[in-house]
Amino acid sequence: MSAGRLAVVGLGPGAPAWRSPEATARLSVATDLVGYAPYLDQVGPLDPEPRRHASDNREELDRADQALSLAADGGDVVVVSSGDPGVFAMAAAVLERLEARAAVGTPAVEVTIVPGITAASAAAARVGAPLGHDFCCISLSDVRKPWEIVERRLTAAAAADFVLALYNPASRARPWQLGRAIELLREQRAESTPVVLARDVGRPGETVHVTTLADLDPTAVDMRTVVIVGSSTTRTFVDVGGRQWVYTPRDYPA
Amino acid sequence: MSAGRLAVVGLGPGAPAWRSPEATARLSVATDLVGYAPYLDQVGPLDPEPRRHASDNREELDRADQALSLAADGGDVVVVSSGDPGVFAMAAAVLERLEARAAVGTPAVEVTIVPGITAASAAAARVGAPLGHDFCCISLSDVRKPWEIVERRLTAAAAADFVLALYNPASRARPWQLGRAIELLREQRAESTPVVLARDVGRPGETVHVTTLADLDPTAVDMRTVVIVGSSTTRTFVDVGGRQWVYTPRDYPA
Repeated sequence: MSAGRLAVVGLGPGAPAWRSPEATARLSVATDLVGYAPYLDQVGPLDPEPRRHASDNREELDRADQALSLAADGGDVVVVSSGDPGVFAMAAAVLERLEARAAVGTPAVEVTIVPGITAASAAAARVGAPLGHDFCCISLSDVRKPWEIVERRLTAAAAADFVLALYNPASRARPWQLGRAIELLREQRAESTPVVLARDVGRPGETVHVTTLADLDPTAVDMRTVVIVGSSTTRTFVDVGGRQWVYTPRDYPA
Repeated sequence: MSAGRLAVVGLGPGAPAWRSPEATARLSVATDLVGYAPYLDQVGPLDPEPRRHASDNREELDRADQALSLAADGGDVVVVSSGDPGVFAMAAAVLERLEARAAVGTPAVEVTIVPGITAASAAAARVGAPLGHDFCCISLSDVRKPWEIVERRLTAAAAADFVLALYNPASRARPWQLGRAIELLREQRAESTPVVLARDVGRPGETVHVTTLADLDPTAVDMRTVVIVGSSTTRTFVDVGGRQWVYTPRDYPA
């Protein structure tokens, strides 16, 4: 049997209107979809309908291995991520397994990474342009890195006045990390710094709140939220129609 | 005449296969396109064909004002950006002008920001997953910010071991900035740190090179290139088929 191929596909954040034609094309010819169950649901019905291999969110390496094996057996396999697969998602896990398999001479499969709109871009778009100047994307999860490195990065990014996009800000298993992160940021940023809480952007039930570093309640944030913390120059205003906007101007004062 | 509406649309980086359905939908009903001439060309032909208002790359505020005025006069206006309009692109300029107009009571127009795949995501996808861990996006242009703030951010990001995606790394008017940035990064990163140079990703003539911090030649980089500099954990390997990959593993050593 000849080897198949594997695409790690980013669906974009939720809305089908944000799914790239390249992602749609790969899904339309797939024999097998591999991914976290809610992302497979996000794909929706396909014709022809591929086999769907749903897994738990924590089994990333197993999922990557399964996908590479299905492709090696001749499948046209899609590993499904939400957002961009290269940002805190499945692409790195697939590469990790591809490297391990290459080291032992496992036959190659053709691998493609299909980029997507990442959650921070979609969250930013809903309120304006808070990422309009230099910014950092940081995962607050300390499952795969020591909490000390998270603190070091938050402190460095805050001191250098980056806008911050915080992924995986909280979960039931990680209840205190966002509160501690906010403490660190408050040491270096004004209380009035705009903060955007964007939950389920592009999905049913989407909510987007604009608050400040002083008023942010970390217990109101869960793992489906992206948190954007402004820099010293990030502004808010209300337009004539009453809509609130947040943006970081292109100019930085000398 | 009733007011129209304005969308700031990200086309994604080059390839039509990366343009979101939301972007395509807004373009398909537009009466007016406003933008930097090469991005208007990137749109391609439309039916019906809107009026196209091409401008120079440096006239961002004029372009934003023109677009808001066309919308206030009843147009269905699209401001065209490449990549994501919220990342070093037109969304911030439009918001800046919207705020100024709101302050003097100019009638509101309905503004929508349509997110896109940003250049760093597409560049990363071509080589694997170098942005698989915490990363920063920094524009090296010192046209709108003092060079000191660029240096401060580069130094902070390097010290905290972020992956860096460098936008606007060089131009004829800014020939030395990338070289100086690389000097700063070499002070804190190993010579073997992987560096990705991705030029015109998704466009005809796309080139993607993988090199190292030691071997990077800043004079070979121009404004159409995104530069990704790995962290201490970013790895490269060659798969069984001979393809070189770059990725930053999900795990960070304690």
